[in-house]
Amino acid sequence: MSDKKTFNPALYLVTDRDLSLGRSLDWVVEKAVKGGTTVVQLREKKLDTKAFIEEASHIKKILKSYDVPLLINDRVDVALAVGADGVHLGQKDMPYEMARRIMGKETIIGLSVESYEQAKEAGKLDLDYIAISPVYTTPTKEELTEELGLEGVRRITEICRHPSVGIGSIKAHNAGEVIQAGADGVAVVSGICSADDPEHAAKELRQAVDKARMHNA
Amino acid sequence: MSDKKTFNPALYLVTDRDLSLGRSLDWVVEKAVKGGTTVVQLREKKLDTKAFIEEASHIKKILKSYDVPLLINDRVDVALAVGADGVHLGQKDMPYEMARRIMGKETIIGLSVESYEQAKEAGKLDLDYIAISPVYTTPTKEELTEELGLEGVRRITEICRHPSVGIGSIKAHNAGEVIQAGADGVAVVSGICSADDPEHAAKELRQAVDKARMHNA
Repeated sequence: MSDKKTFNPALYLVTDRDLSLGRSLDWVVEKAVKGGTTVVQLREKKLDTKAFIEEASHIKKILKSYDVPLLINDRVDVALAVGADGVHLGQKDMPYEMARRIMGKETIIGLSVESYEQAKEAGKLDLDYIAISPVYTTPTKEELTEELGLEGVRRITEICRHPSVGIGSIKAHNAGEVIQAGADGVAVVSGICSADDPEHAAKELRQAVDKARMHNA
Repeated sequence: MSDKKTFNPALYLVTDRDLSLGRSLDWVVEKAVKGGTTVVQLREKKLDTKAFIEEASHIKKILKSYDVPLLINDRVDVALAVGADGVHLGQKDMPYEMARRIMGKETIIGLSVESYEQAKEAGKLDLDYIAISPVYTTPTKEELTEELGLEGVRRITEICRHPSVGIGSIKAHNAGEVIQAGADGVAVVSGICSADDPEHAAKELRQAVDKARMHNA
């Protein structure tokens, strides 16, 4: 297995420029990484492809210096263009098998799982991780699905044995219970992007995750 | 050279579902091809990736039976997923060199050229064709740039020796003059997608192009 595939899912940042309080993504990402973020997913739904590639290329340089992997949301083309470590696929994105064929074996490919049915299907795929979404309801997704809660995390991590991160309104105070319910890490959008101090927010989240993982072990 | 690279740019359809008067893209595309369309560019700016791939895969099957190449607008990932014949890049899309590296030598890659400066730059690249845009102003582009006119087509085809299609408000009555000004073909959106009878519209356009090409030869 390559280093890429053995990434640590403990604290997974999903970027959102609209939730970053006018601060640059560079700044937010670097602060988040300094605070202990272990993997970054760049998510851009409005940028032109060229601008997305330029941004991804820039963020990749920052992350490389911290040895933190970069995943691209949805866009396999952008991931290939900048040599990202992988992609994160939603249920409306490219089907997994196509993405794997195009990206190759050595890249990280993750999938959002929003129901038990989807968890069952995801279990059949050679995914590197799943994102259990949403653990709690969140204002960052346009199409709200019902929250899965801790019971959902428990059931999904039983159905589907891939490494997993929970996502959806997770902050330091509730990160630990998500890990105790079975997730290997937490994915955070506004909890870091909208924090007054993203580095401090990341540090608190990471501590909560690490503490709960120790407790699980 | 492969067959893919020797495509005929005479009549180039760019799809637009919003301009197709509620008729399915399948229907419009098949009619257009029956009327003499020689290449089809699938352009989707709003679809989710999965839906775009499903549509592209379906349109590819139709085109294959007529031996007409399929190009994908902007999205190298969609083109790779369905094995399209190539991509069409705008100035805000993936830079040409990256797209070529990812897509390989055998695929068709075209670029929109909207100024003399861009034509000069395009001339340095190993493109398969350029789209000179807009020859006349058109209601299908959100960001209108100044129309290049026939003098623009003349100058651009002198600056940049790649095969070229003119695009922008071209119909049967003015297609011939665009070819006489130096273009190898015409690209059409509403002239086919919004025609009462797309097959008839394509037939008239193709005749006008072929007549003018004979005149040039």
